[in-house]
Amino acid sequence: MNRNLPEQRYFIQRLAGTHHHRGQRVVRHHDRQTSFFAQQNIDTTDLEVVPDGETFRWFGRYEYDLNVAHTLDTHLNVFAGFEPKLSEGSKKSRLVFLGNIQPDLQRGVRKQVPDAELVALDTMNLWIDTTRESLQKTIEVVDLLIVNDAEARQIAEEPNLIKAARKILSWGPKTLIVKRGEYGAAMFTRNEYFAIPAYPLESVFDPTGAGDTFAGGLMGYLASQPQLDEAALRRAMIFGSVMASFNVEEFGTERVRRLTHDEINQRFRDFKRFTHFEEIPFERAVASVQ
Amino acid sequence: MNRNLPEQRYFIQRLAGTHHHRGQRVVRHHDRQTSFFAQQNIDTTDLEVVPDGETFRWFGRYEYDLNVAHTLDTHLNVFAGFEPKLSEGSKKSRLVFLGNIQPDLQRGVRKQVPDAELVALDTMNLWIDTTRESLQKTIEVVDLLIVNDAEARQIAEEPNLIKAARKILSWGPKTLIVKRGEYGAAMFTRNEYFAIPAYPLESVFDPTGAGDTFAGGLMGYLASQPQLDEAALRRAMIFGSVMASFNVEEFGTERVRRLTHDEINQRFRDFKRFTHFEEIPFERAVASVQ
Repeated sequence: MNRNLPEQRYFIQRLAGTHHHRGQRVVRHHDRQTSFFAQQNIDTTDLEVVPDGETFRWFGRYEYDLNVAHTLDTHLNVFAGFEPKLSEGSKKSRLVFLGNIQPDLQRGVRKQVPDAELVALDTMNLWIDTTRESLQKTIEVVDLLIVNDAEARQIAEEPNLIKAARKILSWGPKTLIVKRGEYGAAMFTRNEYFAIPAYPLESVFDPTGAGDTFAGGLMGYLASQPQLDEAALRRAMIFGSVMASFNVEEFGTERVRRLTHDEINQRFRDFKRFTHFEEIPFERAVASVQ
Repeated sequence: MNRNLPEQRYFIQRLAGTHHHRGQRVVRHHDRQTSFFAQQNIDTTDLEVVPDGETFRWFGRYEYDLNVAHTLDTHLNVFAGFEPKLSEGSKKSRLVFLGNIQPDLQRGVRKQVPDAELVALDTMNLWIDTTRESLQKTIEVVDLLIVNDAEARQIAEEPNLIKAARKILSWGPKTLIVKRGEYGAAMFTRNEYFAIPAYPLESVFDPTGAGDTFAGGLMGYLASQPQLDEAALRRAMIFGSVMASFNVEEFGTERVRRLTHDEINQRFRDFKRFTHFEEIPFERAVASVQ
């Protein structure tokens, strides 16, 4: 732990709705979540609860190998008219992650944190399909876009991922991180490329939320770093992948809730072992067949 | 170049047919290939030509992102009744790659090289579908299986790749290498896991043959190594990926034919750059939020 760093603060900007139908049970669930956040020193000052609203829901099915998710239905519910207003404390955030909501609303939050050192953005196919122009405007004003590879291709309207990345970076972001599910993740900047495999797992129980957990681990690690340079971003991607690897092992947030730092660090080190190979000396890089 | 190594020899075991219809032109093409092999010191002693046969052909289509190939038709032609008989020189091969033919025939070749230090095996969905039992028997007598991830899942009848790998290794091979197209490749042994991304390319023109080129690069590098240990296999996977990355840039073998060692070595070094990240010190692996 680096004592020189400012105290870390995390903000929940998403609106949590409660159910009318099942009212009491869901409200209790909500209180339980909030107290868990408090235990983890997560500031929920800006959390907004709509008593008569319904929570955002996504329905989908996964293919045989769990790599491809098909959206069956998306219910925006309380998200639809959400216009986050940040408290004074939140406006001073050094790092901001704009969760997946309508891109106009994301831009509204972006404007409230003009001094943030790094603003990251998530989105999904729904917004690419229905609000392409607004989404591009939002991409133009962030530092880091985090999407999956199908989304990156769709945003750029370009089947080749490398060309798609170049196009997206030309709009403004310094960095694009592409999540590839079971295949890992890749990071593109103007002059660098970095790619990692996923943590190999025998028990992938529920891939839902892996992308959010990846982003959470990544942003959380960056928040601990004084310099947000290429090296920090690379390590942050590993931590994001490590967190996602735990998330998919059980349903919902069950596994992540009881995670220890030792478990996280062990998987970081495993990543080094899984990806290490020796350099070859210059003079005999390829043995000639002569 | 390591002068202590025995002279490298490469053998073409596959049958090349010629076309009756377009006879003259195809025969000239065949002669041109053979002379190119000769220039590269590739021994074609065991190459068998069936004058009245038709060459093996595969028809397929690729999806939008070029990651998934759909087989439309497979014409075995001269491959159907091929029973390779090795010359005395070939029987002494240190390394053998059993190309993708009917698994009984592959086992027939395997028996002719009992002293080989490493025997690798390729296969395809056709043989998994139609000759599963024979294929498993062949897998049992090789050291290294090289397949793509859909094939690995299908062979093991297991959607989770890590479990599929464990099952396949339990049949006998010491090593399984899984090709993942645009996503790179992974290697499984009893106690180790290694994964690499693919070389990032803006111009993927034709992915056909990428898998064969990968295997060729991998086996070619191993042939230059005195020790076939984990470290050599890892580097060999990089060289396989490098060769495949050139192959897909142009149609057929056009790009690979004019490759230089400098180009190959440059991409090997790029791989180090694309995959490097810094370790974290033990005492502050994850910065606590406290």
